Amino acid sequence: MSSGAPPASPLDAELLAELRQLVPSDALLTAPEDLIPYAFDGTAAHRARPAAVVIPTDRDQLIAVVRAALRREVPIVTRGNGTGLSAGSLPSTGSLVVCLNRLDRILELDPANLTMMVEPGVVTQTISSAAEAADLFYPPDPGSMKISTIGGNVAENSGGLRGLKYGVTRDYVMGLEVILADGSVCWLGGKCVKDVAGFSLRDLFIGSEGTLGVITKILLKLVPKPAARRTLLATFASMEDAASAVSGIIAAKVVPCTLEFLDQKTIRCVEDFAHVGLPVSAGALLLIEADGNPAAVDAEIAVVEATCRAHHATDIRAAADAAEATRLATARRSAFSALARMRPTTILEDVTVPRSELARMVRFIETVATKHDLQIATFGHFGDGNLHPTFLTDERDEAEMVRVHTAMQEIVTMTLELGGTITGEHGVGLAKREFLPQQLGDASYQLHRQIKRTLDPAGLFNPGKVLAP
Amino acid sequence: MSSGAPPASPLDAELLAELRQLVPSDALLTAPEDLIPYAFDGTAAHRARPAAVVIPTDRDQLIAVVRAALRREVPIVTRGNGTGLSAGSLPSTGSLVVCLNRLDRILELDPANLTMMVEPGVVTQTISSAAEAADLFYPPDPGSMKISTIGGNVAENSGGLRGLKYGVTRDYVMGLEVILADGSVCWLGGKCVKDVAGFSLRDLFIGSEGTLGVITKILLKLVPKPAARRTLLATFASMEDAASAVSGIIAAKVVPCTLEFLDQKTIRCVEDFAHVGLPVSAGALLLIEADGNPAAVDAEIAVVEATCRAHHATDIRAAADAAEATRLATARRSAFSALARMRPTTILEDVTVPRSELARMVRFIETVATKHDLQIATFGHFGDGNLHPTFLTDERDEAEMVRVHTAMQEIVTMTLELGGTITGEHGVGLAKREFLPQQLGDASYQLHRQIKRTLDPAGLFNPGKVLAP
Repeated sequence: MSSGAPPASPLDAELLAELRQLVPSDALLTAPEDLIPYAFDGTAAHRARPAAVVIPTDRDQLIAVVRAALRREVPIVTRGNGTGLSAGSLPSTGSLVVCLNRLDRILELDPANLTMMVEPGVVTQTISSAAEAADLFYPPDPGSMKISTIGGNVAENSGGLRGLKYGVTRDYVMGLEVILADGSVCWLGGKCVKDVAGFSLRDLFIGSEGTLGVITKILLKLVPKPAARRTLLATFASMEDAASAVSGIIAAKVVPCTLEFLDQKTIRCVEDFAHVGLPVSAGALLLIEADGNPAAVDAEIAVVEATCRAHHATDIRAAADAAEATRLATARRSAFSALARMRPTTILEDVTVPRSELARMVRFIETVATKHDLQIATFGHFGDGNLHPTFLTDERDEAEMVRVHTAMQEIVTMTLELGGTITGEHGVGLAKREFLPQQLGDASYQLHRQIKRTLDPAGLFNPGKVLAP
Repeated sequence: MSSGAPPASPLDAELLAELRQLVPSDALLTAPEDLIPYAFDGTAAHRARPAAVVIPTDRDQLIAVVRAALRREVPIVTRGNGTGLSAGSLPSTGSLVVCLNRLDRILELDPANLTMMVEPGVVTQTISSAAEAADLFYPPDPGSMKISTIGGNVAENSGGLRGLKYGVTRDYVMGLEVILADGSVCWLGGKCVKDVAGFSLRDLFIGSEGTLGVITKILLKLVPKPAARRTLLATFASMEDAASAVSGIIAAKVVPCTLEFLDQKTIRCVEDFAHVGLPVSAGALLLIEADGNPAAVDAEIAVVEATCRAHHATDIRAAADAAEATRLATARRSAFSALARMRPTTILEDVTVPRSELARMVRFIETVATKHDLQIATFGHFGDGNLHPTFLTDERDEAEMVRVHTAMQEIVTMTLELGGTITGEHGVGLAKREFLPQQLGDASYQLHRQIKRTLDPAGLFNPGKVLAP
């Protein structure tokens, strides 16, 4: 894969010498073969070789490394385990990649205040498990949570399957420590549930995709673990029926924890991959999970079931036990991997529309696929309006890639016409940068540029991402 | 009250002439007697007369007025109904006060997407009632919600009694339209439940206290209305017992909607004012409300009751019906008014600590009161760690006011030592400005100043608030 990456320009020699003093010898990579894994992330068709990679092992090293790079005006691209889907951690020319996955300690779990302090390199699943061991719950569950790191989740403001009821990563970040462009280290937020002292700069850094500073520490909010959980699988002949069932569930004042949608193409791929007994002839499928107080969960599931029936569900299957529920959720999580086996290149889109526009949007994507002779499978978080139309394509086929790009532009335009967003949870990065001005409009885009210039005057933090240079 | 306000410097004559063209004649106030009501807000011991007050009646007028003032570099202080408790809407020298309470229309209620679009001058209670009429729920309920306007709630990121379970105003703002310093009008956010396109500038404006721009339109998030609600009153001999009961409730994985605390002094004042049968000899009182699915509410209330008993509650009383529950909640809401009758000046503090430090903080406040021979009654949102120590004092007594200030400094210092914040929900405004650098630290405070300079280079939006000029 790396063969296509343009050659990297060499790193500033004096910086390199300084870095050698700051980190252990195995923590500084410069040999071309060592740099290969850092030339791409989870985003198809994007690669670029870094000048060097440094992997600090603790906070002091990280701060020293970042300060050294800033002093010499060398661009810094931070990354974790590289699961990003918007080319947000792709190296830029002459950049030093700072990989944070060795800063992987849970620093404190405070059950009295329901908080957890972590380093940015902790894997999301590890946080989830640690919370669970204390009978608590960290709700955000991005699809890649078994590999992704919390620093990346915060930088991208990652979503997940439970967003409808529990919100996204932003809703669980109470505090952040960041290194600013002048090298100072700044703490934003704290353990107070309510705090209105000053601007919410913590929120400015969450979702800023590494373009405003480097996150060194994160204070997370936990919640009590739900006592019960029930999972339901509802099959529909058409996507419209599934969409109207979702509207019906919301209209019935029920907010399930998870409300996932798979179209026919995705159902078939997932079943072929995971063999969990999905109905391969169904037009659409909803995976619904309710959690909370046992009686409330039973009541919600009853409403969900009745609503699905009223909207012509052809089949409704309740997970018999926790094991089956996990199997079904895991199958849904495997959608991306399952689809990725179909053709050489998998481009995962992330458009999101107001919930009321879902059926229209899914139908439009189908029309676009037919029009441009493309394979697009769609799945996603129907409860959030967050869709993942997935292009199954081949980046070596230049003509097809031109059609992919045109189709994408049409999908983005329709998304914005419907009051939607170009990215619901994957971030802008490099992959969506060209579409951002269209979504934000002039005044907001210019304000973004002003903020970037203020916080990063020399343009050293993840240059070229989110905003055009 | 206005007699103490310093005389206002006259407004730029050309601007005045221009404003006369822009708004109806009754919407521009310049006569000294007309300016009196705009010389203060809900904050004791702060007043300053504006140069003029303009009260636009629609969005176009508002935009034209703000642009005219910006063009002539006249400072703008926006306000709603003036219920603020941090002197955040106090006029500054030579400023034009722009009062938004005539922009009071609900523009759209969208039940499919669970959103409501409103103008900034809509009274919070009106929003709450309109949501309820559609069988929906707008959770934020600041103490002043019957009078306060939503624009002020957003500018201050107001909290309320339901913060523990439902969060604060920030959590219900999906979109904002703002006028920026260059006069451009900028839309931030939208109806998508998930949206990670660009920085979260919406979050930067929420809670920025009118110092970064003028809010012209707000898109609010609604949630399904809880099906059931139950209220409990628990009495304790000591504040420590009440605090440990709160910790016990959280440890039992129950998050009630409301968990309010009243100390003995507050109990007596409220009972004397509202006559709802509060136990005036109790050392402390908790008002607890659970809401949601009926079975879940019953289960939660049972746990709360058992936990309170285990922590030595001397009496537990369940509200017999909705009417009694409302009566009790209203009594709690009247705490400020009840205390305000006691002495000429009432200074409502707003410090917040991590939940685990509550008992220590309340005890410290009592010590400070004794030490400086002051009357301080404390009530607040125990579930959030948000305390309202209330100074019952007399601003004409200079010696006492010096002691009040010393006591406040000691309370702030202890708050910060315990990892708390100088303001949980009232904002910094003018009243807390001197304490902000101590809380934020150098790096964060300087970053605040940079952001302010970037968004408001001429310093025209609510000058002198939050940050020192």
